[in-house]
Amino acid sequence: MGLKLRRRAHAVVVPGFRFAGVRSGLKTAGPDVALIVADRPVVVAGVFTTNRTAAAPVRVTRERARNGRARAVLVHAGNANACTGAQGVRTVEVSTALVARKLGVPARAVLACATGKIGVPVPHDVLLPGVTRAVDALAIRGFPDMARAIMTTDAFPKTAVRRIRIGDRPVTVAVAGKGGGMIAPNMATLLVFVMTDARLSAAYARQALRAAVDTTLNEATVDGDTSTNDTVLLLASGAAGNPIVRGGRAGEAFGAALGSALAEITELVVLDGEGATRVVEVEVTGARSAADARRAARAIGESTLCKAAFHGADPNWGRFVCAAGYSGAAIDGERVDVTIGGVRVLRRGRPKTSAIPAAARRMRGRRVVVRLDLHLGSGRARVLASDLTPAYVRFNSAYST
Amino acid sequence: MGLKLRRRAHAVVVPGFRFAGVRSGLKTAGPDVALIVADRPVVVAGVFTTNRTAAAPVRVTRERARNGRARAVLVHAGNANACTGAQGVRTVEVSTALVARKLGVPARAVLACATGKIGVPVPHDVLLPGVTRAVDALAIRGFPDMARAIMTTDAFPKTAVRRIRIGDRPVTVAVAGKGGGMIAPNMATLLVFVMTDARLSAAYARQALRAAVDTTLNEATVDGDTSTNDTVLLLASGAAGNPIVRGGRAGEAFGAALGSALAEITELVVLDGEGATRVVEVEVTGARSAADARRAARAIGESTLCKAAFHGADPNWGRFVCAAGYSGAAIDGERVDVTIGGVRVLRRGRPKTSAIPAAARRMRGRRVVVRLDLHLGSGRARVLASDLTPAYVRFNSAYST
Repeated sequence: MGLKLRRRAHAVVVPGFRFAGVRSGLKTAGPDVALIVADRPVVVAGVFTTNRTAAAPVRVTRERARNGRARAVLVHAGNANACTGAQGVRTVEVSTALVARKLGVPARAVLACATGKIGVPVPHDVLLPGVTRAVDALAIRGFPDMARAIMTTDAFPKTAVRRIRIGDRPVTVAVAGKGGGMIAPNMATLLVFVMTDARLSAAYARQALRAAVDTTLNEATVDGDTSTNDTVLLLASGAAGNPIVRGGRAGEAFGAALGSALAEITELVVLDGEGATRVVEVEVTGARSAADARRAARAIGESTLCKAAFHGADPNWGRFVCAAGYSGAAIDGERVDVTIGGVRVLRRGRPKTSAIPAAARRMRGRRVVVRLDLHLGSGRARVLASDLTPAYVRFNSAYST
Repeated sequence: MGLKLRRRAHAVVVPGFRFAGVRSGLKTAGPDVALIVADRPVVVAGVFTTNRTAAAPVRVTRERARNGRARAVLVHAGNANACTGAQGVRTVEVSTALVARKLGVPARAVLACATGKIGVPVPHDVLLPGVTRAVDALAIRGFPDMARAIMTTDAFPKTAVRRIRIGDRPVTVAVAGKGGGMIAPNMATLLVFVMTDARLSAAYARQALRAAVDTTLNEATVDGDTSTNDTVLLLASGAAGNPIVRGGRAGEAFGAALGSALAEITELVVLDGEGATRVVEVEVTGARSAADARRAARAIGESTLCKAAFHGADPNWGRFVCAAGYSGAAIDGERVDVTIGGVRVLRRGRPKTSAIPAAARRMRGRRVVVRLDLHLGSGRARVLASDLTPAYVRFNSAYST
């Protein structure tokens, strides 16, 4: 939803992987079962939701991915398999066992993700035939099908590709994600899959993924709700044959490509935020600490008053300063600068009223940067926020149960 | 706004006090300068916003009220005098000095509050003539005028009265408040004034006000934003002539009356929340601690997804559990009970699908109780939340600057 961008998934091939996306019937329309399969055991790293009522697939996958190796990822869309108790875990076990049997691999090498409605048991008679079809459909060129099958109410598939060299070997980083296109209720889950043919150590993969997620996906906020199902997985096949990356310069190069691809996915997720019409990058600098900067930026990005002002293209710096004021960050109202789209509207706590019309014009863009300099230190942080629109509320108040 | 209730302010007289409410022109229409004056110095206690960019009147009043004595409170509506720097402090000094001169009292005995737009200097040529008129209009029966003059976009004046006996003396507790009727931007301030003729010690007054606010006004959430101007003041004239209350049984009696009056104001504030159509009482019990219960209740009451579900009368317990899950509170999804309007929809993590239609019917009421029992301990907390409506977003995205 939101900006109604049209985008197609990248037709990328990642050596060592096959993909599929098929329809089972869990969603009312479109493909809803996706499968990512590696030709042999690959390095895996994961970042999972911090929600304490994590969904069954998250709980199972977190455990199975712990040893840093995996063979396949099964994803279904339309039913989050969250708040489904022991039955939910059974669904994960049965469906991943089916994949494992068909592929001839151990069940614990098959990871699982889900997105969709919370609190409804997954109908096995719908899911399992879809899983079988997905295994049959696996193809080297199946990446776009997979990217579409993980969507719920996303308006478009979200993919990003980077190509780098490590040593003398070309390496591909391909990302498919789904995000905040949550028109229908409870479909707020963020799922992101990174596939690469690079050879990475498990420790490096874990550290690189964590670092890249912290400065990209973790800076996005559509509505501040943290889903029960959020999952980011990095799978590295090693088919590129590069010297194994454990850090150093090769690690920096891979990390930069990974970060850049995830940054692109983050922008797409926020752009496709529920009912969103505008992406606002909130940047806080000069905070007493990085944690303070994060608090202030997040308070602005999550404030319904600020988000409504974003929607109205209203350069309402008073709301931004107010949100920073209650965020818990140290702040001195008489030192704050506020800049909107490059136009300074507040300087050391003093309004520049004459600048407001220019700032209002900048706010009308699809992407706006709001910057607060607190002039208290060197802490800085950034949050990408969508605006809050009447459409968001209408979609999310639609009767769902 | 919101439910479009019509209510009139109580025509209450509080011995020892005079009141006024007049028009200066700070607002586009209606009275906008209010004055509360005590016949002699009275005991005062205050609770102020925790926002670190507190408005000028808050900063001055917090300081002046510290000694526990005051003589008058000047309030203006339409301009919050927040983010106005040194000029804002000057406005408070000049306007309270005018009141002091007219009344023949020290300037530091005059407290000040303001509500309205942030970041705009207060025009003295508009405010000061209004202040003079307010002093001239002071009357024993001026309470309703005062209650109306503190409103911004509130749909109705919010007043509550309690009458008790302390010893053999009749005592009145009269409260006037303004709240979340924040149709126009930046008018989210909560101002509440409690006037009583009871004789209270300053220490008791402070402790009683803090305790009553914690279980009433601090449990309300309209949009989770904490204003730069929030102020609650308790003024006790002692004109009732009761033995001075320092605690004990008399303290309990007074505290109960104060708590009950503030609870009534809290309900009115949430009812009158911006665009609100429904008040939801979120109660969390069985949390590991009271702090955990507060975290979970507040996360549900502030989640835009949950608030949109409240609006749609959608018994979407999955969203409630999800919000509790990311609140930071300890939670085990397989122990949680959820009850909506007395109808249990989740029992120990297992959905009772057959109960959903009945729960949906209960949610259609104007006031709904959503209860989560976490079954982990004895911590409990309560939050009063309004629903999130398309009207809220429309009002708050209207161009303001």
